[in-house]
Amino acid sequence: MKRITILLIAVAVLAGFAIFAAITSRHAPAQEAAPIFGITIPPGYRDWRLISVAREEGNLNDIRAILGNDMAIKAYREEKLPFPDGTIITRIAWNCVPSEENNKLFGRPQSFVPGSAPDWYLQVIVKDSKRYAATGGWGFAQFNIDGKPAAEAVLTNCFPCHQAIKARDKVFTRYAP
Amino acid sequence: MKRITILLIAVAVLAGFAIFAAITSRHAPAQEAAPIFGITIPPGYRDWRLISVAREEGNLNDIRAILGNDMAIKAYREEKLPFPDGTIITRIAWNCVPSEENNKLFGRPQSFVPGSAPDWYLQVIVKDSKRYAATGGWGFAQFNIDGKPAAEAVLTNCFPCHQAIKARDKVFTRYAP
Repeated sequence: MKRITILLIAVAVLAGFAIFAAITSRHAPAQEAAPIFGITIPPGYRDWRLISVAREEGNLNDIRAILGNDMAIKAYREEKLPFPDGTIITRIAWNCVPSEENNKLFGRPQSFVPGSAPDWYLQVIVKDSKRYAATGGWGFAQFNIDGKPAAEAVLTNCFPCHQAIKARDKVFTRYAP
Repeated sequence: MKRITILLIAVAVLAGFAIFAAITSRHAPAQEAAPIFGITIPPGYRDWRLISVAREEGNLNDIRAILGNDMAIKAYREEKLPFPDGTIITRIAWNCVPSEENNKLFGRPQSFVPGSAPDWYLQVIVKDSKRYAATGGWGFAQFNIDGKPAAEAVLTNCFPCHQAIKARDKVFTRYAP
């Protein structure tokens, strides 16, 4: 009887492990690194603090939130440049769509909200002045909502534009107070 | 000699207290509560996690970030309605202005970023099903960037609009994944 109890407990423990492993793997699929810079999606970035927001019209037609890790937020708030190694800034973009619900209540077509995710859903820049010395100390990556990295040809466009922002360590986004 | 030392230490400690008090009071000015609902600006709300973003054209012409306290974020992510008592959601709005800097690099006028703060800079809604039973369990407040609450006449407009959003516990903003 004792042996059966021990066996049952052992089976229960193993089942627990199996369920835990299944849940864990579902929430953290193997992450494909972006080309050139070898950047993966930073874990927990959606919990990071807000740096600013933006709206791009034209072909992009998206609405954006720019989030930063603790190092990024500290540097922004203390207005300390250049950003220290380890700074990570993420930019989430959603297709910008009219909110019919809001417009009905406002009585006019004026309200726009995040819709589905465009191909350029998530962009990540990582500061590492040694590793990314050739691109001003920044590594660049882009992922779609399924975590698939954008091709090399997309990433080679990043630095040529970013380097124009000399006064702010090549970062477009300013902190929105 | 011993007595003088003790006296000097006492003076130094008092000076420390005075400096500390001065710094503290500079960072936390006495907060005026909003009318009707008695809401004050939630301490540290600018560090809260992002719920979503939005863009209002027309007379408002602003761009927005919607942040939530831990309770709000949990309820949104678990899709649990109604929001529990203690939920606080803040909405920051900035005047939406073109970014000449970005537009020059994009080669066309498409980029909009946060500018100065409009009078409706900060809105706060607080869930308290007993205290705010008359307004669907929500209290409403608005502050300008200097922390000055909006008048009673502004706040009486909140609930009549919010109550239309029956399916989502009277909250306009959806979570942006």
